[in-house]
Amino acid sequence: MIRPLDAQSRAELPRTLPLWSLAEGRDAIIRRFRFADFSAAWGFMGRVALLAEKLDHHPEWSNTWNRVEILLTTHDAGGLSARDVAMAQAIDAIEPGRIV
Amino acid sequence: MIRPLDAQSRAELPRTLPLWSLAEGRDAIIRRFRFADFSAAWGFMGRVALLAEKLDHHPEWSNTWNRVEILLTTHDAGGLSARDVAMAQAIDAIEPGRIV
Repeated sequence: MIRPLDAQSRAELPRTLPLWSLAEGRDAIIRRFRFADFSAAWGFMGRVALLAEKLDHHPEWSNTWNRVEILLTTHDAGGLSARDVAMAQAIDAIEPGRIV
Repeated sequence: MIRPLDAQSRAELPRTLPLWSLAEGRDAIIRRFRFADFSAAWGFMGRVALLAEKLDHHPEWSNTWNRVEILLTTHDAGGLSARDVAMAQAIDAIEPGRIV
């Protein structure tokens, strides 16, 4: 059993993970990506797949051509945990995106 | 513009693609896969990604650890086309599965 994300870390999410938002109807965070084409999206997914195995924390994700959506939650915690924050930060390091 | 799947091919889908079913609410076909673990699922997805680029026909798909769901439809046809059948058959050749 992994501990759920503590209240302070949860309150800080908009600052620590500004590119992510809370998923609807689930205790999870989500980020959507758009790339030039499928090849670029798949290249990114390959890097995330390696991260997932390395951190032993796997996303729920989907892809349609140049678009990728990643949802992170921790089944063993019944919702968000520090592992999701760490994984999201590692993904952001690959794809920093723009803070809009 | 690609032609939609003709009526005869559509009627034959349960025979030609017994592992696929019609998606709900969309003119699309869907197949769900379950593998030993993420590594196996990702290996399969890599092969499908190569197929998608080769056939220039990309799935809408999702993955959660050992599970993969693939949805095929043809945007340029406004629904199912022969390209979806060809792609599904190529995916089945990679992962024949069991006809239950």
